[in-house]
Amino acid sequence: MDFRTDLALERRDLLGAKSTDGIYSESEINDNVRVTRIRVQSDEAEKQLLKPKGKYVTIEVPAFSDDSEIFDGRLDVLTKEIELLLPKRGTVLVVGLGNELITPDALGPKVASSVLATRHISKELIRTMGLEKLRCVAVIAPGVLGRTGIETGEIVRGVADRIKPSAVITVDALASRSIKRLGSTIQICDTGISPGSGVGNARKRLDKSTLGVKVISIGVPTVVDAATLTYDFTDKEKSQSVFVLPESENMMVTPKEIDLLIDRASKLVSMAINRALQTTLSTEDILSLVS
Amino acid sequence: MDFRTDLALERRDLLGAKSTDGIYSESEINDNVRVTRIRVQSDEAEKQLLKPKGKYVTIEVPAFSDDSEIFDGRLDVLTKEIELLLPKRGTVLVVGLGNELITPDALGPKVASSVLATRHISKELIRTMGLEKLRCVAVIAPGVLGRTGIETGEIVRGVADRIKPSAVITVDALASRSIKRLGSTIQICDTGISPGSGVGNARKRLDKSTLGVKVISIGVPTVVDAATLTYDFTDKEKSQSVFVLPESENMMVTPKEIDLLIDRASKLVSMAINRALQTTLSTEDILSLVS
Amino acid sequence: MDFRTDLALERRDLLGAKSTDGIYSESEINDNVRVTRIRVQSDEAEKQLLKPKGKYVTIEVPAFSDDSEIFDGRLDVLTKEIELLLPKRGTVLVVGLGNELITPDALGPKVASSVLATRHISKELIRTMGLEKLRCVAVIAPGVLGRTGIETGEIVRGVADRIKPSAVITVDALASRSIKRLGSTIQICDTGISPGSGVGNARKRLDKSTLGVKVISIGVPTVVDAATLTYDFTDKEKSQSVFVLPESENMMVTPKEIDLLIDRASKLVSMAINRALQTTLSTEDILSLVS
Amino acid sequence: MDFRTDLALERRDLLGAKSTDGIYSESEINDNVRVTRIRVQSDEAEKQLLKPKGKYVTIEVPAFSDDSEIFDGRLDVLTKEIELLLPKRGTVLVVGLGNELITPDALGPKVASSVLATRHISKELIRTMGLEKLRCVAVIAPGVLGRTGIETGEIVRGVADRIKPSAVITVDALASRSIKRLGSTIQICDTGISPGSGVGNARKRLDKSTLGVKVISIGVPTVVDAATLTYDFTDKEKSQSVFVLPESENMMVTPKEIDLLIDRASKLVSMAINRALQTTLSTEDILSLVS
Repeated sequence: MDFRTDLALERRDLLGAKSTDGIYSESEINDNVRVTRIRVQSDEAEKQLLKPKGKYVTIEVPAFSDDSEIFDGRLDVLTKEIELLLPKRGTVLVVGLGNELITPDALGPKVASSVLATRHISKELIRTMGLEKLRCVAVIAPGVLGRTGIETGEIVRGVADRIKPSAVITVDALASRSIKRLGSTIQICDTGISPGSGVGNARKRLDKSTLGVKVISIGVPTVVDAATLTYDFTDKEKSQSVFVLPESENMMVTPKEIDLLIDRASKLVSMAINRALQTTLSTEDILSLVS
Repeated sequence: MDFRTDLALERRDLLGAKSTDGIYSESEINDNVRVTRIRVQSDEAEKQLLKPKGKYVTIEVPAFSDDSEIFDGRLDVLTKEIELLLPKRGTVLVVGLGNELITPDALGPKVASSVLATRHISKELIRTMGLEKLRCVAVIAPGVLGRTGIETGEIVRGVADRIKPSAVITVDALASRSIKRLGSTIQICDTGISPGSGVGNARKRLDKSTLGVKVISIGVPTVVDAATLTYDFTDKEKSQSVFVLPESENMMVTPKEIDLLIDRASKLVSMAINRALQTTLSTEDILSLVS
Repeated sequence: MDFRTDLALERRDLLGAKSTDGIYSESEINDNVRVTRIRVQSDEAEKQLLKPKGKYVTIEVPAFSDDSEIFDGRLDVLTKEIELLLPKRGTVLVVGLGNELITPDALGPKVASSVLATRHISKELIRTMGLEKLRCVAVIAPGVLGRTGIETGEIVRGVADRIKPSAVITVDALASRSIKRLGSTIQICDTGISPGSGVGNARKRLDKSTLGVKVISIGVPTVVDAATLTYDFTDKEKSQSVFVLPESENMMVTPKEIDLLIDRASKLVSMAINRALQTTLSTEDILSLVS
Repeated sequence: MDFRTDLALERRDLLGAKSTDGIYSESEINDNVRVTRIRVQSDEAEKQLLKPKGKYVTIEVPAFSDDSEIFDGRLDVLTKEIELLLPKRGTVLVVGLGNELITPDALGPKVASSVLATRHISKELIRTMGLEKLRCVAVIAPGVLGRTGIETGEIVRGVADRIKPSAVITVDALASRSIKRLGSTIQICDTGISPGSGVGNARKRLDKSTLGVKVISIGVPTVVDAATLTYDFTDKEKSQSVFVLPESENMMVTPKEIDLLIDRASKLVSMAINRALQTTLSTEDILSLVS
């Protein structure tokens, strides 16, 4: 039975008492933000959790309800968690995954359009602009297989072969089991991603084994499987009837306010990436440099 | 208990055995298209159905899955049903309701942008273009209260006071109880509409009593209440637990592919309106006149 | 010979030595911003200038080159000039003129989408939000004749008849004679506007005589006639050949960077309107209230 | 002196009597469409024309004025000319160059979004769909240096290294000297392109020497240098004054109706590419397969 979730946290909760050795987790709460760190360390844990060995950090915040809330602490926490996973030096390639024409899938391309690319700016120009030094950053939004005819992984590998990054950051919309999480949970992991896996069509993985460098994957759940959603509610009543209903099997749903949710989540994630990468710039500098 | 549906058909089904006198309905199926006509004729029926007295035509078609399907018969049926409700002469004002920035709510504005406005075209020009005669049509997309500060009804009345239409056609996105209906059901009625009613914030009605002329309302369901959705599934198991779950109470959900659904539904509805209004033009003429 | 300009300042300059009594103008420069006030006071002046009697304030600033420049003084000057023309009390109706689908004509609709509408917010809610008091503001973007079939003036009159504003503010893209002015000049006048006049197809005027209340019109030049542009350059060489070139006669041109120009101009104008209308709110409050 | 044109035809005309050996050209007119073939064959010709040795085909048509005109013969001519330059077998990589956020520069990305990608469709699926056989096509829109930090050529090489196409087709917006050409001239050449060269910031070339396979470049002029434009008009009066006017030096202008121009040109070019690549599909098949 496939629970259609991309969140390690939800998979751990599904395991429940069956949990095995090799899965370690800890949580801390500060103000409104809960951070849970899960480590998957054994082959058996990997198999049970359906998640590759590595680190999964889940940040849970109250639902986005206002532009100003980006500064309620969640931005600082997200920035710090990205910094912890980043190598100290070298070019970083940021990859916005997903389809910009499907609103709930547009998180990656929207974040990509707001991450500050610097790799092409000469040292002379940086000095002229009065900037201390900029981390070398390249940004792409490779599109989706159905529109390019090319596996996303092939495009990313092709570009990585040429620009030789020291790390790759991917950003993608995820599937969750719970409607409450949409737009209010962020997962960061160091195990890479299979583009499209959240919605059932796994692509070749983007990870250290395929790209040769560390791949940090940032995702925000934006869709829920209609069947999963139903299960989630009726769980409390011990009814599992939904899984026999064929018409809902492939229906992923998203909130009516998805345009706003994507807008806010992409602002938060792009700003956190910019701050984690450009530690010599202020938030105001970043906002004025990113068009 | 509010079942959050704008469809007379769904309200009738909810009534079930409790159905009262004054509700008459009949269905016919041709090819893939089912047309159900419901008449609400008594005060008691109005109260039980929560729908004003009048005619409600529901067209049910297979889910939109391809651009070409617009010509599988559904366009002809929809065109004919609109024609049946339209007065034979006089200016028609088409009103696209909803918020173009919220994808599931953008049906009305999208349809408005593809309906052929002709009221400003002089008779001389129409002759020059070699056109027989055009029905006089005006089109507005009045926006939503939260962005204009003006009740939609006030804007429509203000415009109608000046251009004196013989009928008004409104187009809006609706709420349904069933995820299966999203994008595949169309309701046409002659009782007008309360902008926003489907999602719980009823505006002043747009109907004959407020506008002074017949109001034909065309709607397509694009959202489902998460609670309703759950009920729908668990109904078969007699579980009604969902109504105690507060977090889902106000969550309207929509399919992941909502952008495509809106695109196709707006093409179908705008073309049907154009054909019902401009009976002397071919579909090709209409396509070349609407930019 | 039609010089295709909507700017009183340019018409005055074209008159040159032929200038008549009844045109008074004065300029002041502060930092980078030049403000010129022209008063047209006689019938003869009106005829010579082709501009109705009234006040024309022109604000000239360096070309927009950075988001941060909105705060270089131009916002304060623009806000103050709008305040000077506004009545102290009563509802204000803000009207965004133009076609949002034609980038150089989209200034009005874009400004409308960022002006804070407040007319629908109850006094209770305002208190709950901790706000002192809000000026009552309504906002519409009526669309263009070719797409609505309705003269813009009819729509605005229809709405004004219902909401009874004490003043109307219109915002529109203008035509200039000089490519240097595009995006860097703002005209404010108290004589209203003829929608579409800048590009040769004058609509019925929006002014005190048609709407019954003061009409303050704010405009930013975004297009230049190709013939005018050529004349402008060759003028210095006394060549006027361009006016015999038929192919350029109706070609309005705009800079390659028009998307950015419109984006920046609409941010500046909408913020100035918001600040002039909501004097009890800070710029930050306004930004958080306007989605 | 730089005349800012990407068209070989305009460079040839500028050479005039100074023309050298090694430039051969011929024209033919059918109905409304004029096709001019220029061959640049010597080093000296290359130097004088500022265009690499190779074939340049220019298609001149009446200005786009109606959607239906795509079928007036121009589509057939363009399709045929692309076919003539294409290798008979092997994967084709279509590259949409330019910045989708700058309307006059968005031709490439818009065309890319309407070219049918097939490389990922399995032979089984093709048989299931009842299609004869599809040419293997991949499509990318690599973005612009300022937003990615990566030279466009690096991205295209990286992708080409992995998918090994037999030819690359690039699509880009061009600069012309004449406002009359905007949207009504199409250039096809087999010498590749320097992304951004038309507006003064030449990037590393995309051509056979850098990509290892034939590069067919399709371009449509969408901008004119304001100085060039002026010169063009006053040329007939022998006035060349404009070149001393610094303020116009870097101003590229585009028609007010640029949104419509780009929309129509991208439909024409994408359909021609689709037809040239998928010779077993009808125009209707293509339209239904491209979303």
